[in-house]
Amino acid sequence: MNRFSAMELLTQLLSIPSPTGSEDQKLAFIRNWIQSQCPKSELLCHTVDGLIVKNSVNQGPHIALVGHADVIPNWFDPYDCDGKRYGAGASDMQAGLAALMTAMAMLQKDISVSLIVYNREENTPLLNNGLYGLRQTVPDYFNAIDFAIVAEPTNNTIQLGCVGSVHYTVTVPGVAAHSARPWDGDHALYKALPLIQALANQSPVSHTVMGVDFFDVMHITESQCATGKTTIPDAWQANINYRYAPVYSAYDAENYGRSWIQNWVPTATIDVADHAPAGKLLKSSICDTFVALTGVSVEAKQAWTDVAQFAAMNIPAINYGPGLTAQAHRPDEYVVLSDIDIYTRILTQSLRAI
Amino acid sequence: MNRFSAMELLTQLLSIPSPTGSEDQKLAFIRNWIQSQCPKSELLCHTVDGLIVKNSVNQGPHIALVGHADVIPNWFDPYDCDGKRYGAGASDMQAGLAALMTAMAMLQKDISVSLIVYNREENTPLLNNGLYGLRQTVPDYFNAIDFAIVAEPTNNTIQLGCVGSVHYTVTVPGVAAHSARPWDGDHALYKALPLIQALANQSPVSHTVMGVDFFDVMHITESQCATGKTTIPDAWQANINYRYAPVYSAYDAENYGRSWIQNWVPTATIDVADHAPAGKLLKSSICDTFVALTGVSVEAKQAWTDVAQFAAMNIPAINYGPGLTAQAHRPDEYVVLSDIDIYTRILTQSLRAI
Repeated sequence: MNRFSAMELLTQLLSIPSPTGSEDQKLAFIRNWIQSQCPKSELLCHTVDGLIVKNSVNQGPHIALVGHADVIPNWFDPYDCDGKRYGAGASDMQAGLAALMTAMAMLQKDISVSLIVYNREENTPLLNNGLYGLRQTVPDYFNAIDFAIVAEPTNNTIQLGCVGSVHYTVTVPGVAAHSARPWDGDHALYKALPLIQALANQSPVSHTVMGVDFFDVMHITESQCATGKTTIPDAWQANINYRYAPVYSAYDAENYGRSWIQNWVPTATIDVADHAPAGKLLKSSICDTFVALTGVSVEAKQAWTDVAQFAAMNIPAINYGPGLTAQAHRPDEYVVLSDIDIYTRILTQSLRAI
Repeated sequence: MNRFSAMELLTQLLSIPSPTGSEDQKLAFIRNWIQSQCPKSELLCHTVDGLIVKNSVNQGPHIALVGHADVIPNWFDPYDCDGKRYGAGASDMQAGLAALMTAMAMLQKDISVSLIVYNREENTPLLNNGLYGLRQTVPDYFNAIDFAIVAEPTNNTIQLGCVGSVHYTVTVPGVAAHSARPWDGDHALYKALPLIQALANQSPVSHTVMGVDFFDVMHITESQCATGKTTIPDAWQANINYRYAPVYSAYDAENYGRSWIQNWVPTATIDVADHAPAGKLLKSSICDTFVALTGVSVEAKQAWTDVAQFAAMNIPAINYGPGLTAQAHRPDEYVVLSDIDIYTRILTQSLRAI
């Protein structure tokens, strides 16, 4: 296994479209590749949620290498330019997948390692998330994992934990009226102004956990009032996204956000559209050892990732991948080729040394 | 012609669906009814825009009775309850049409009168409006009109002129970012807050014209930011509707509104989506005489109507109809039956006495 083959593997991955919900062809390729390169590995499961392959080593800690197969950008023919590989999902997270698969092949006789490739991660509610589905299918497998590495794009740094994410659907009622006679109505958007102004005025609240900084932030992402072009709107509706540091329980965070919003507009209706709890940081000597061996910088994951699902199972897990965070979801997404090389080398060397 | 027949005629009109753009069947009925009841009348034109019928009297001032055939609510079987007639467009303005048609029949030998029934009035840009189309088809006919009565719903009062209406499409740019890392972006809705707050704070500005009060008002009707549920929005877009009294030129009003909006958010892009100029009040002895003869109360039309098209042709025109303003566009629209009777009687008596 050499640099050429990791690049070659990435080319093959990027050549197969895998938009969220249509990952079958990519999964079939990955399964065939692993079974060909790691003939002694065992396919633990392959369902609509993804696949899990375990190598034949059963001594020492069991390390899971984890990645999702789906990508956000529309597919385009991959190409190289100026040391970058362009392709749909290059950074998020086809480069990570190529590196994890390469590591599986390189480590197949050395340490106890498995590969989880799952479907439907992007913009997917937790109950439809492929990793969540796999957890229900093979719970015993997950119970045996000692440490998980999720290769989401982190610019080759290690990112610990993850913030929680609550989406509130907030509706502020008004009274419709003809737009030429506004005194007959009560403008819903104007009634929401104290809330919008308060959201605009607040600053991120920082929390230092195990030496890294998370931030609580709450903002309107989508909003609309659309009763008609000649109508004073009778409702303003918004999606408010609350991201909170892994220092609160999911219950407390959800209630805090709800109360905060309600305080500004007592007449608002507030529903929770989705809530992905934060990924707590677990004390773990394997994790500490691995992080120290890599020598790369460590920071907080200021986003939600499936590290939270491992935390919920009490499995130490980190975000660590070769993709660029800023490239994620861009229509012309790329990854820096040398980053994949560096990542694969540090990952395999550090895992061998644990 | 008696009260029963006006009610009977309204039943027939309400039995035929005529949503905007699909008025053919109703127009055919109206044409047949007029030709049957007023055998000496002349069909001046019948196009995709509507129809015009003139009676055979050619002495004295020429009065045009004007109504649109289209309705907003979804069609439903008309019925009576508690002295009200329920039906799609009952108040806006099928009752007015029934009364105008009845008046045409009653006045056919008395005064010079014509009936204009046109298509596509509701929510239609001026260039697609049926009355606008008829103006292009028979300009000489319009030049000969001395006074026009538009039977839009006015609660049996007379409403003079009409406010102008400009729809501005306002776009405030921001910079998108992941909603967990808002400091990477610039929130478009928050950047629009000075404008939204200023619109919420302003009061109507009144103008007294020929003894009636018009009001300038400007408000957001529709608005949205929708870059994604996990994205700080990179654009906020709104429809701002400016209604202005008939005391400004269309040019001045449009520029004033644009400057006012721009002043609050210098980075905003402002486009005029639609502009229907105000209907100016014209000095007219025929109009004054008619208004005095009716004895009904007189007020300003705080909405836009096709009276503005007559004003643009320098033809005195008023809004005067039996429908209830507050019932217009309601899904279960009704008209008070006795109002139609009162209206038809006052209209015909006053026109005979001019």
